[in-house]
Amino acid sequence: MELFYAYEVSGSTCFLDAEESTHCVRVLRHRPGDLLDVIDGEGTLYHCELSVADAKGSETRILSAEPGWNERPYRLTLGCCPTKNNDRFEWFVEKATEVGVDRIVPLIGDRSERKVYKPERARRIALSATKQSLKALIPEITDPVSVQSFLSSPPSVPCHSERSEESLHLIAYCFEDASHPRRSIKEVLEGFKGREVTVLIGPEGDFSPEEAALALENGYIPVHLGTSRLRTETAAVTAAEAVYFHFM
Amino acid sequence: MELFYAYEVSGSTCFLDAEESTHCVRVLRHRPGDLLDVIDGEGTLYHCELSVADAKGSETRILSAEPGWNERPYRLTLGCCPTKNNDRFEWFVEKATEVGVDRIVPLIGDRSERKVYKPERARRIALSATKQSLKALIPEITDPVSVQSFLSSPPSVPCHSERSEESLHLIAYCFEDASHPRRSIKEVLEGFKGREVTVLIGPEGDFSPEEAALALENGYIPVHLGTSRLRTETAAVTAAEAVYFHFM
Repeated sequence: MELFYAYEVSGSTCFLDAEESTHCVRVLRHRPGDLLDVIDGEGTLYHCELSVADAKGSETRILSAEPGWNERPYRLTLGCCPTKNNDRFEWFVEKATEVGVDRIVPLIGDRSERKVYKPERARRIALSATKQSLKALIPEITDPVSVQSFLSSPPSVPCHSERSEESLHLIAYCFEDASHPRRSIKEVLEGFKGREVTVLIGPEGDFSPEEAALALENGYIPVHLGTSRLRTETAAVTAAEAVYFHFM
Repeated sequence: MELFYAYEVSGSTCFLDAEESTHCVRVLRHRPGDLLDVIDGEGTLYHCELSVADAKGSETRILSAEPGWNERPYRLTLGCCPTKNNDRFEWFVEKATEVGVDRIVPLIGDRSERKVYKPERARRIALSATKQSLKALIPEITDPVSVQSFLSSPPSVPCHSERSEESLHLIAYCFEDASHPRRSIKEVLEGFKGREVTVLIGPEGDFSPEEAALALENGYIPVHLGTSRLRTETAAVTAAEAVYFHFM
């Protein structure tokens, strides 16, 4: 099954940009009348017929629509500090998208070695991984934000949900804090009956105690990811897998 | 914490090769008398004192030993078909090593696009990931073997164990087989009380029906990894994570 992405859906038409169109018309040599599966990136799969086959910009006519196609039973926001080596973070974006994530927030922490992050490449990787893993919803890759402002400003409350038993907010850090013992992410998830989860993963140098304290003040639960010492990008994917398996 | 790898341990001496010695003496500028943590790659951590500081080959004197340091409560063999893009397979080797794996068997399947695989680079990556993730046991990366001979020849029975309730043998393939419905790897693991697990992951084109049938004849249980369509290397890491969380 091959998926195409429509940057715009208007009336009964899905519009493919030049990149998708070139792939569709030049590489796969589709012709008018061919049946195509098109996603809008927001959760809907459209079964279409190619109406305008132009490598610069093709159009497809919608025959039927499947809203919530291959929808997950949960919503996951991963806040993760970009790694010094950009490839590692982009690898995490690809893998988390394959496994399942709704929103990725590049966090700049007190101890982040990378203070500047441009999300454009990661967004292209997320689009490609979404199509490859047969999903209709492309995870949102937000602009980078500091850990402090993510924790403080209401708009950055994950998926705009209220703190409630419906949503779980976790922060994974490595240092021991006697007054706030960490439980495993698996154990914490097992007691959770909602469907909205946020997990924060720190930079190579971990979160600062101040950031951890602010998270706890904001209702975040401290967790660990098991006994293995994981790289930042591995920890972030492991968190996505923990949520994936919890809802499996 | 920094770990060094000793290619040989004899009497009360750990021997570091040129690469480890250069890193120890030239890069980290360790001097005789410095205390070092050295692993033998087979599960033991040695607390040592640097006795001979030579970039070509250093020696450390063993002060104490911790056999089974950071040992996992399970033994995992992952048989996985190398991907067409070698980087993806090597990425899997690094991540599976971080999360936890004992043996990686590069499998050549009927539908493998890559029929030849040289494990040397992957072995170096496994060593580096073992040290980075603070483990004393370096996963064995075997020479490549065909799916058929892995399933058929006794020496390749995972971890040389007998089929028993102590060991679980799983094969993850994507096609539906009405006579052998697949359960999720999570569900199958939940019913397992042993500690030795083998999971087989096919190539981009999946296992052939003949390979799947042979696996089932040999006591393998067919599983799926959830609803996401995962790339080969993502599926292999996801299998490692499933076992990691089961024993967490």
